[in-house]
Amino acid sequence: MSTPQGFSTYATTAGIKASGNPDMALIINNGPRYDAAAVFSRNKVVASPLKLTRKHVADGVLRAVLFNSGNANACNGAQGDVDAVASVEAVAQQLGCATTDVAACSTGLIGDVLPMDTIHAGIDAMCAAATATTPTAGAQLHVNEGQDAAAQAIMTTDTVPKQAHSDGAGFRVSGIGKGVGMMAPSLATMLVTVMTDAVATPEALSNALNSAAFTTFNTLDIDGATSTNDTVIVMASGASGVEPSQEELNRTIHAVCASLADQMQADAEGVTKRVRVEVTGTTTDDMAVEAARTVARDNLFKCAMFGSDPNWGRVLAAVGMAPADMDPDNISVSFNGHTVCRHTTGTPDARAVDLSGTDISVVIDLGTGGSGRGFVRTTDLSHSYVEINSAYST
Amino acid sequence: MSTPQGFSTYATTAGIKASGNPDMALIINNGPRYDAAAVFSRNKVVASPLKLTRKHVADGVLRAVLFNSGNANACNGAQGDVDAVASVEAVAQQLGCATTDVAACSTGLIGDVLPMDTIHAGIDAMCAAATATTPTAGAQLHVNEGQDAAAQAIMTTDTVPKQAHSDGAGFRVSGIGKGVGMMAPSLATMLVTVMTDAVATPEALSNALNSAAFTTFNTLDIDGATSTNDTVIVMASGASGVEPSQEELNRTIHAVCASLADQMQADAEGVTKRVRVEVTGTTTDDMAVEAARTVARDNLFKCAMFGSDPNWGRVLAAVGMAPADMDPDNISVSFNGHTVCRHTTGTPDARAVDLSGTDISVVIDLGTGGSGRGFVRTTDLSHSYVEINSAYST
Repeated sequence: MSTPQGFSTYATTAGIKASGNPDMALIINNGPRYDAAAVFSRNKVVASPLKLTRKHVADGVLRAVLFNSGNANACNGAQGDVDAVASVEAVAQQLGCATTDVAACSTGLIGDVLPMDTIHAGIDAMCAAATATTPTAGAQLHVNEGQDAAAQAIMTTDTVPKQAHSDGAGFRVSGIGKGVGMMAPSLATMLVTVMTDAVATPEALSNALNSAAFTTFNTLDIDGATSTNDTVIVMASGASGVEPSQEELNRTIHAVCASLADQMQADAEGVTKRVRVEVTGTTTDDMAVEAARTVARDNLFKCAMFGSDPNWGRVLAAVGMAPADMDPDNISVSFNGHTVCRHTTGTPDARAVDLSGTDISVVIDLGTGGSGRGFVRTTDLSHSYVEINSAYST
Repeated sequence: MSTPQGFSTYATTAGIKASGNPDMALIINNGPRYDAAAVFSRNKVVASPLKLTRKHVADGVLRAVLFNSGNANACNGAQGDVDAVASVEAVAQQLGCATTDVAACSTGLIGDVLPMDTIHAGIDAMCAAATATTPTAGAQLHVNEGQDAAAQAIMTTDTVPKQAHSDGAGFRVSGIGKGVGMMAPSLATMLVTVMTDAVATPEALSNALNSAAFTTFNTLDIDGATSTNDTVIVMASGASGVEPSQEELNRTIHAVCASLADQMQADAEGVTKRVRVEVTGTTTDDMAVEAARTVARDNLFKCAMFGSDPNWGRVLAAVGMAPADMDPDNISVSFNGHTVCRHTTGTPDARAVDLSGTDISVVIDLGTGGSGRGFVRTTDLSHSYVEINSAYST
C-alpha cells in the first residue's frame, strides 16, 4: 500500500526478536506541514515510550515516529525513560529535527530493558536510508522502504500485517496498525499510525481521531485487558495542498480506523468467532456500551460462543451484573436476528439457533424503553487463546 | 458427616438430570427453634427460587430447604415463580408447616422450565421418608438420609461433594455447599446451607453469616461471572440448648464457610492452580479488594498462571486499570514470597521464580503507603475451563 504524499517509511530487522523477524520501523513526515494528534491507553501503569510520546505530541507537531516490536519498554523504571529518550534523540539528530518532534512506540514483553546497541543499530540503518548517507553503525542491516514493510515490522503475535486507506477529494489517508490480544476499553497493546497528506490543524486531527476512536478502537474488547503501551497517532503532511472540511476529514480517518479495528478483531489471539454485542433499551448510550462490555467480557458467554452454543441464559446472567438501568423481567435477547429470549424468558426454539458461522450478532434489549444504545465487538474464548497466552515470557 | 442435632437431611434421584445422578435434596430443621438468615447473589437478574427464598427468610424463620440440581429455574418468567411456589407448598403441606417457612434452591441450566411431575415425585418421596408415611407418589424413588447424600445431590459440574463442620463449646456447626464455576463478587451458582444446633437469633446468625461471607465466599472470584441463583442459608435448631457468644458463633460459622470456600476454589471448573492475590499499600480495604479482583479477573494473568509463567508484567498491566489509589512508579509484586518487581521495575531473577506448584501467592503493594489491604482467591484459566464451558446447554 502506498503512503500519502510527504511520508516515507522504513523497516529493518535489528535483532530484538529471538524469531529473527522484522522488529523496527520509522515513519517520517517530510512536510511541508507536521501537524499531529494522538490518543493513548487509559492504564495508570504506562510504558516509557508512551509517556515520552504524550509529551512530544502535546504541541501538535511530530516529524517522525520510531517503532520497535519484541520489547514493550514498560516497567523498566528510570532506565526505561532514559532509553526511550536516547532512541528518539538518535533519530532527531540524524534527521535534523528537534528531539521533541519524534514519537516512540514499543510493543512486546513488559519488563525487559531495551537492548540499546541493537536499537541504535536499527535507528542508524533506517536514518541512513532516509537521508541517503552511510550509516555510522549497523551497516550490515538491510532496510526495506514502504508502508508494507513498516506494517510487518510492528507485528508481535499478529498473524497478518494490518493496513488501510481511504481517499478524500484530492487527498489520501492511510494507516498501519498492530494489535491482537490486549484490546479493551481503551485500545491495549494497539499501535496505530494514520498518515494523511491533507492540510489539517492539530485540532482538526484531534477532533477526527477522537471521534473515530470512540466507535472503532474503543468498541473492541477482546479480553478485557488494557495495555501499558496503546498509542494511536495521526499525522498530516499537507503535501496534497488540499484542506478538507472537518466532516470529510472525519469520514476518511474514521474509514481507516474502522478497517484497522476490523482487522484487529479478526486477528485476535486464538479467535474462531467475531461477536458483536449490541445493547438497547437502557437510559443512556454509555450505559448501553457498559452493558455490552460486561457481556463481551464474560468468560462463560465467550466459551459458549466458542462452542457455537446458543446458551442465552449466560447472556442474562452476565448482563444482570452490568452498571446499567434495566427491567429484570423485560429483557430480550436475539442471536443472529432470532429472538431467543423475550420478557426474560426463553422462546420455544431458542436452543436451535445456528451459531456455527464465524460472525455472531447478539442484540440485548434491557426493557426500560430508554433510548440508550451502544455496542462492543469481541471474540470467543478458545483453546488457542489459552495456548497462546499461557506461554509467552518464558 | 453427621448433622447438628435437630436437623435431618434427605436426597433422591428424581430424574431431572440426564446423567441419572442424584438431583434433589431436603434439609429439615426439627427445632425446637427455627432461626435462619441468608445472603444472596447481587445479580439484577435472579432466579425464581431465589426471589421466593429472599421473601420467606425475611422473618428469620425457616423450617426446611428444598434443593434441586440440573435446572436453575431462572429466566422462566411467571411460570418459574409458579413452579417455585408449588414446590415449597408441596413440602410445607407434607411437613405440616407454613409455605413461607420453606426455602428453595435450584442450580443448573438457565431457561428450561422445571419438570414439575419429576419435582413432585422427588418431594413426595423425601417427605414420606421424613414423616415415615407412605409416599402419595414417587413410591419407586429411593431416598438416602444424611448430610453426605444431600451434599452429593446438589452437585452440578462439581467433581466432589463439599461439606465442613466446626465444633463450638457444647454445640456444632455443619454445612454443605456446591459451586465450581460462576463464583464472583457475590457468590455465583453457589449454594450453601449451614446448620447449627446452637441457640441463636436470626440477628446473631445474620451477623455471623455476613461477616463470614465477606472473607470467604466473597473473596472467591473464579471467572468474574455471577450467578442468578447464589444462596447461602444458615439455620439454627437450638437443639443443643447452648447459646454461644456472638464471637464464638462467628468463629465456628466462619470456619465452616472458609472450608467450603476452599473446597470450591480447589474444585473450580478446569482449575490446575489455586491463586491468592493480595493487595496492600492503597488507601482503603475496599480499594485493595477491587484491585485484587481486577488482577484475578484478567485473562492474560490467568493464562500465565496456567503456564506457570512468572510474567509479572501482566500483573502490572492489569492492576493499572483497577479503581484504586496507587503510585504507578512505586508498585511492588511478589510471587510465592519472591520479589519480582520493585518500584515498578523487574528484579534480576524475576523470570526464574518457580510457579510449577498448585498454589500460587501473588502480593501486590500499590506503593502509596496507605493501610488498605485485601485479597481475592482465584484460579488459572485452563484448556479444561474452555472445554467444560463451551459445551454446556446443547
